[in-house]
Amino acid sequence: MLRIGLLGCGRIGQVHARSLQALEGAQIVAVADAVPAAAQGLAATTGADIRAVDEILVAADVDAVIIGTPTDSHFDQIIGAAKHGKAIFCEKPVDMSVDNIHACMDAVNTAGVPFMTGFNRRFDPNFAALRSRIRAGDIGAVELVTITSRDPSPPPISYIERSGGLFRDMMIHDFDMARFLMGEEFIRLHAVGSALVDSEIGVAGDVDTAAVILTTASGRICQISNSRRASYGYDQRIEVHGADGMLRAENQLESTVEIATKAGFRRDPAQHFFLERYGAAYLAEMRAFVAAATGGASADPGIVDGLRAQIMADAATLSRERGQPVELAV
Amino acid sequence: MLRIGLLGCGRIGQVHARSLQALEGAQIVAVADAVPAAAQGLAATTGADIRAVDEILVAADVDAVIIGTPTDSHFDQIIGAAKHGKAIFCEKPVDMSVDNIHACMDAVNTAGVPFMTGFNRRFDPNFAALRSRIRAGDIGAVELVTITSRDPSPPPISYIERSGGLFRDMMIHDFDMARFLMGEEFIRLHAVGSALVDSEIGVAGDVDTAAVILTTASGRICQISNSRRASYGYDQRIEVHGADGMLRAENQLESTVEIATKAGFRRDPAQHFFLERYGAAYLAEMRAFVAAATGGASADPGIVDGLRAQIMADAATLSRERGQPVELAV
Amino acid sequence: MLRIGLLGCGRIGQVHARSLQALEGAQIVAVADAVPAAAQGLAATTGADIRAVDEILVAADVDAVIIGTPTDSHFDQIIGAAKHGKAIFCEKPVDMSVDNIHACMDAVNTAGVPFMTGFNRRFDPNFAALRSRIRAGDIGAVELVTITSRDPSPPPISYIERSGGLFRDMMIHDFDMARFLMGEEFIRLHAVGSALVDSEIGVAGDVDTAAVILTTASGRICQISNSRRASYGYDQRIEVHGADGMLRAENQLESTVEIATKAGFRRDPAQHFFLERYGAAYLAEMRAFVAAATGGASADPGIVDGLRAQIMADAATLSRERGQPVELAV
Amino acid sequence: MLRIGLLGCGRIGQVHARSLQALEGAQIVAVADAVPAAAQGLAATTGADIRAVDEILVAADVDAVIIGTPTDSHFDQIIGAAKHGKAIFCEKPVDMSVDNIHACMDAVNTAGVPFMTGFNRRFDPNFAALRSRIRAGDIGAVELVTITSRDPSPPPISYIERSGGLFRDMMIHDFDMARFLMGEEFIRLHAVGSALVDSEIGVAGDVDTAAVILTTASGRICQISNSRRASYGYDQRIEVHGADGMLRAENQLESTVEIATKAGFRRDPAQHFFLERYGAAYLAEMRAFVAAATGGASADPGIVDGLRAQIMADAATLSRERGQPVELAV
Repeated sequence: MLRIGLLGCGRIGQVHARSLQALEGAQIVAVADAVPAAAQGLAATTGADIRAVDEILVAADVDAVIIGTPTDSHFDQIIGAAKHGKAIFCEKPVDMSVDNIHACMDAVNTAGVPFMTGFNRRFDPNFAALRSRIRAGDIGAVELVTITSRDPSPPPISYIERSGGLFRDMMIHDFDMARFLMGEEFIRLHAVGSALVDSEIGVAGDVDTAAVILTTASGRICQISNSRRASYGYDQRIEVHGADGMLRAENQLESTVEIATKAGFRRDPAQHFFLERYGAAYLAEMRAFVAAATGGASADPGIVDGLRAQIMADAATLSRERGQPVELAV
Repeated sequence: MLRIGLLGCGRIGQVHARSLQALEGAQIVAVADAVPAAAQGLAATTGADIRAVDEILVAADVDAVIIGTPTDSHFDQIIGAAKHGKAIFCEKPVDMSVDNIHACMDAVNTAGVPFMTGFNRRFDPNFAALRSRIRAGDIGAVELVTITSRDPSPPPISYIERSGGLFRDMMIHDFDMARFLMGEEFIRLHAVGSALVDSEIGVAGDVDTAAVILTTASGRICQISNSRRASYGYDQRIEVHGADGMLRAENQLESTVEIATKAGFRRDPAQHFFLERYGAAYLAEMRAFVAAATGGASADPGIVDGLRAQIMADAATLSRERGQPVELAV
Repeated sequence: MLRIGLLGCGRIGQVHARSLQALEGAQIVAVADAVPAAAQGLAATTGADIRAVDEILVAADVDAVIIGTPTDSHFDQIIGAAKHGKAIFCEKPVDMSVDNIHACMDAVNTAGVPFMTGFNRRFDPNFAALRSRIRAGDIGAVELVTITSRDPSPPPISYIERSGGLFRDMMIHDFDMARFLMGEEFIRLHAVGSALVDSEIGVAGDVDTAAVILTTASGRICQISNSRRASYGYDQRIEVHGADGMLRAENQLESTVEIATKAGFRRDPAQHFFLERYGAAYLAEMRAFVAAATGGASADPGIVDGLRAQIMADAATLSRERGQPVELAV
Repeated sequence: MLRIGLLGCGRIGQVHARSLQALEGAQIVAVADAVPAAAQGLAATTGADIRAVDEILVAADVDAVIIGTPTDSHFDQIIGAAKHGKAIFCEKPVDMSVDNIHACMDAVNTAGVPFMTGFNRRFDPNFAALRSRIRAGDIGAVELVTITSRDPSPPPISYIERSGGLFRDMMIHDFDMARFLMGEEFIRLHAVGSALVDSEIGVAGDVDTAAVILTTASGRICQISNSRRASYGYDQRIEVHGADGMLRAENQLESTVEIATKAGFRRDPAQHFFLERYGAAYLAEMRAFVAAATGGASADPGIVDGLRAQIMADAATLSRERGQPVELAV
């Protein structure tokens, strides 16, 4: 039984707690949150103790920590947990500073603890199937990957201001997915972006509509586009073009119902809510973490994946500002 | 060059004339219609002579006739054309009387002339592909055929009154299609029907919504349903369930465009107009007739197909009236 | 907290137990099964006591029973549970004898206990949406309902022999669905059926491929077709044609992934396993039962729905044997 | 009756000849081709005279010319035709030199003759519907356009060598489409490309897989991707994301037939052949040219559209070579 300390009892912490309750082999023994009510809520539903973060990091009855606190807390928690030999699951981004991620990586490697970065989309059954079929050779060599990711509606400006910008906050998922599917590191990217959805986002120094082209050393290409708004739901699609064919994963709609009238044939919107759209992914992600932390499997995506995605997000931010492509050190 | 006399210059005559103009190897040399303006119109666009029907039937410079006149004229024209050695294309239904069709069949067989019945849907590229793939064994033995056929809107009551009823006027196409796909004769049917679209159709003694179950000697089953109205276009679908899989042909929509909004994902309605929906079929049908009439191919569907479909339509009409299944002599 | 006694710890009992564990407001306090290991298994995962059926039926600490035992045990358990004031959930079929169902209905009504029949498909989110949209008038008056239901593969002959036949064992779900969607009772049906999938099924006196036409007093029509085998998964589709449009629910596929190669565009098979296909339905069904049993909602579908479906299944069996339509008393 | 001189009797000349024969209001009176057999072939099917190009350009009985000769002949023919007051239809690219196109534009404007550039895809019914619906406001302001264009298989290396490169030969269509749909000029582009399909293409100095990002002054974005190979047919898709929704045009498949087996649900490949895929577009294009040349409509797309697309193709070629974005003068 893996004994887990949950750091951060907000929305994502609650998602992971629910997943863990549905799984065998793990138990949340302690929870911590800066907001007492949040900690109390999760303590009530899980039966865990409420403790301070620092207590959890050193606790003898805690084997692993799940870090769902604000990003600027991650660094200390990772260093502390590694030092005390805990297996670590950390939400993305690991840290806003690439240097800090390097330091975390050193600490994790020195301690030899399992570390998983929270790129939940790798665990989506559709995207996981996409990758399995690519690896199985179903479409031959991958040549061109197209990732479309659009949120139903933009977050509040207050969130935007603290987010690090669209490339670090939103497209970082797509950078990881591009690496996951391509199987070869990208060496160069060019990013463009605009505030078309809400001019206030532009005033805040960010963009809400963006496109990026990435290339690998062997000349393979990935296109990513993001928008902070999609009237028809949470638009999450991927297409992979290869030498022998094309694989694509379409949106998950709210139902299989279609209505035909004089206006034509209409199906439901895409599932709007990320917890619904990625519900199966969040569960599979926790299952994978429990397996890794209990020694059965390697932790994947690891801290290096968190690092690479952050490097790409930084590069895209810079490329957009300068209007020039940026090289990605491998 | 096949020299053709066109009997009947109404809507369907014009369709066939256009098809023949687009084909090589055939020429319309004479046209006839009880309405002078109709004959004049087609004479102008085709360069053909206007002649009386009786003249065309005996003309030395006419190799083949296309019969698109009202149904009650078919019998005399078939008998006359067969007697004078003309190849014959006749629109469905060959005749409202099964006895008359038998007489036509005798005349045609005695004369040894090619005869094709105008079941245009067999020439639809989708339905033709369906049959080819069934025959190629793609789904193994056929077990259950489901045919859905719905008109965009009902014809005028005046038409309904003269039509012979839904089973003879509309479902006759589906009876032929059922035979075409099943590859085994049906021995029994049970029909139900109601006037749900327009109560005036019920007052006229007909139905506008109907369903039929047909069975073969070996126990294979076909379901057919018809409606005289479909708000979303001309609904023409077929599904064939076999031992190893299922084949289906979906509707042809007005375009490939889809719009996604908060209401969901909407594609265009099905093509509404039968000439658009079956445009490719009408052309292929004339190509097949020209090939048959010039000796290259057997005429298919032949007069026996017109006969079998009429027998089934009569049986369905009777079954609906009696509320009992009716046996189909093979 | 609704205290539940679970009668029958086989596959369906386990499904309901899992659903109840995921819900709030209910607790399984006792389980019973003729096979000790089955009862022990569920007792272990739920923490419930193992008791004899008769003890559960009279227990003061049991508010409701869920009956998932073999069909021939249902009658005594329903009578017993009603007598002792328990809310009752009973799997379909309620009983193979319509007379027995009438007796159960009397007992339930006399006792005034909530009773729900286990027609899980009503709780499928897609089919439930279909009905909501019909009731909301999205397609106007319903005219023609088409239900397609095909199992991935036939059950063992030993199961077939005890099943009561395809119409009572398999199509009974579709009869209930037809009533659920049509909103008007059927007065007549005509059934055909054959053993095409496996001749042994025919030897056992049953059919594996069947089609039924049902009609209502106002002339509305329903077509149902069943097959015991579908190579491409568990085929569960419904189409409802109305005055103003058409609603349909398509299959749930294994993923949203599509592959395009020179062979064309291929999506995944339909979900094969009924627990996967109807997983959401089973959960919603238990939620509805807990709500009904705790007084919040009426029990729907009720025992009268179990009765009507059984009457229709008997009639279809008879119709198929006689080759004649059968009237359904309303 | 518009009297047409057809310059160039190769594949595209034959396409236009067939379209013109199916239209009313135009007649091909003269044809010219450097290859005598090509001219003779079209003369036979159209009844036109065979003449030298120079004779056609000055002929009193020729109102309009259709230029389908090799690109390096376009310039002289346009200048000559304009000088003699002929309406002009010219295949893309108008000329490989932007300076030459400017000179042609001057000549055409001076002469005041209608000029249409052969961007056939604007006339595809699906893409035309896409634009109509954008203009009608169906999705609000356009924010992000994604164009996917993949040929079934690469042309011979000998063709590649003379083609001007992928951006001028293939993506030029997509540049025009981007302008057609966006409704605002692009000011900047960044192109990447690789030879992944065939290394010989790389040896010839060209690419076979490419992606471009374009931006407008107001920050709207367009992504274009091309591949010289798609196993599943001629892949021609467009997606337009706007403030209120998304419009997309999917591929036209070879039929509407779908087969379901244990491997899943498979539809046909996309139509492979460009003459099939864009058959309706070629016909509509000639109809539009005849209307423009006979004074009824303005010629659209005009020579300025040919110019802008060529500027974009040159810029993309340069951008790819330099690895830097390139500004587009408006």
